[in-house]
Amino acid sequence: MVSEFYDVIHRRRDVRGQFTGAAISVDVLDRVLEAAHAAPSVGLTQPWDFVVVRDRPLREAFHQHVHREREVFAATLDAEAAERFARIKIDGVLESTLSVVVTYDPDRGSPAVLGRHAIADAGLYSVCLAIQNLWLAATAEQLGVGWVSFYREEFLRELLAIPAGIRPVAWLCLGPVTHLEAVPDLERHGWRRRRPLAEAIHTDRWTPR
Amino acid sequence: MVSEFYDVIHRRRDVRGQFTGAAISVDVLDRVLEAAHAAPSVGLTQPWDFVVVRDRPLREAFHQHVHREREVFAATLDAEAAERFARIKIDGVLESTLSVVVTYDPDRGSPAVLGRHAIADAGLYSVCLAIQNLWLAATAEQLGVGWVSFYREEFLRELLAIPAGIRPVAWLCLGPVTHLEAVPDLERHGWRRRRPLAEAIHTDRWTPR
Repeated sequence: MVSEFYDVIHRRRDVRGQFTGAAISVDVLDRVLEAAHAAPSVGLTQPWDFVVVRDRPLREAFHQHVHREREVFAATLDAEAAERFARIKIDGVLESTLSVVVTYDPDRGSPAVLGRHAIADAGLYSVCLAIQNLWLAATAEQLGVGWVSFYREEFLRELLAIPAGIRPVAWLCLGPVTHLEAVPDLERHGWRRRRPLAEAIHTDRWTPR
Repeated sequence: MVSEFYDVIHRRRDVRGQFTGAAISVDVLDRVLEAAHAAPSVGLTQPWDFVVVRDRPLREAFHQHVHREREVFAATLDAEAAERFARIKIDGVLESTLSVVVTYDPDRGSPAVLGRHAIADAGLYSVCLAIQNLWLAATAEQLGVGWVSFYREEFLRELLAIPAGIRPVAWLCLGPVTHLEAVPDLERHGWRRRRPLAEAIHTDRWTPR
């Protein structure tokens, strides 16, 4: 009965190279954003916003910035890691149909946010839950999503005229794909292997390993 | 075709009062944790761990701490808000079958985490994506989840012997429930209403409202 749900969970990939650029219907985009908006949030603040970016010059400016940041990261690597990194595509900003920038407004519902007085980051956590809902809904709709994080928040804030005090949390490329890979890109390219689940599970108290 | 998936997205609730305490089978718990572990993560670091807490004294100690923190929050409210807050149950730590504490290890995959050089919080974001996968999988399995955030991280770290440098991100109550409410608790109790999705959507650039 829950097999369709788990199929979405396990098929989901972080897409860089498989975007086709084909259109997304209004109905599909609405369902995906409704799923994001249905996420839980601390104190029912729903502190997220979604900036749907289709404008070509904006995407080109972001893409160029991402590639400058790629060089910043590459310069921190030793020769062997740099060689592996050179094979890895880090974004599909120009090939995907559109992008969704997800932001966090810490003032929404302030000052008395129920459930945030002891954990300041709880609002930021809520935004991430919405992102994962969006990602899974897109996967259910046969779309791909790629989270690009090679950017400086201040650059993105200025690019999209996001007010001071609102924090950009994610740039998500979205659109139809030729296929979803069975194995994550970073594993296919030898960057890093997935960890066995058993190593991540502890009973009652932290188990040193 | 995707209706079962969206049913899970929209049925999911943050549960406080509907836990039955009935057992969770090993197979179901495995599927739920596998779903969490299938989340995307920056640089494929999978920086999460899951501490499955069944021990009664640990849960009682946490529950007492949560209720001390409830009083801390209540003291910040005006009389009208305090009256509304008094009606709201904030945790199901003792009534639920077990809890899962999800943690974040910023050192996993360090120093060169692909996709984190410009955004230090990207690893923390990954942990939240795993939490949402867990929450949705539990919903698909007819279980309830309640995220309790009335606690101090240092208290929880000491309670579960979590090492310095590893950050507790969530205490999730988990288990069978009598039902899931159609409307979120905080809305039912008049604490706060949900925001229309249309107000959260912007086109190309931030739209001041």
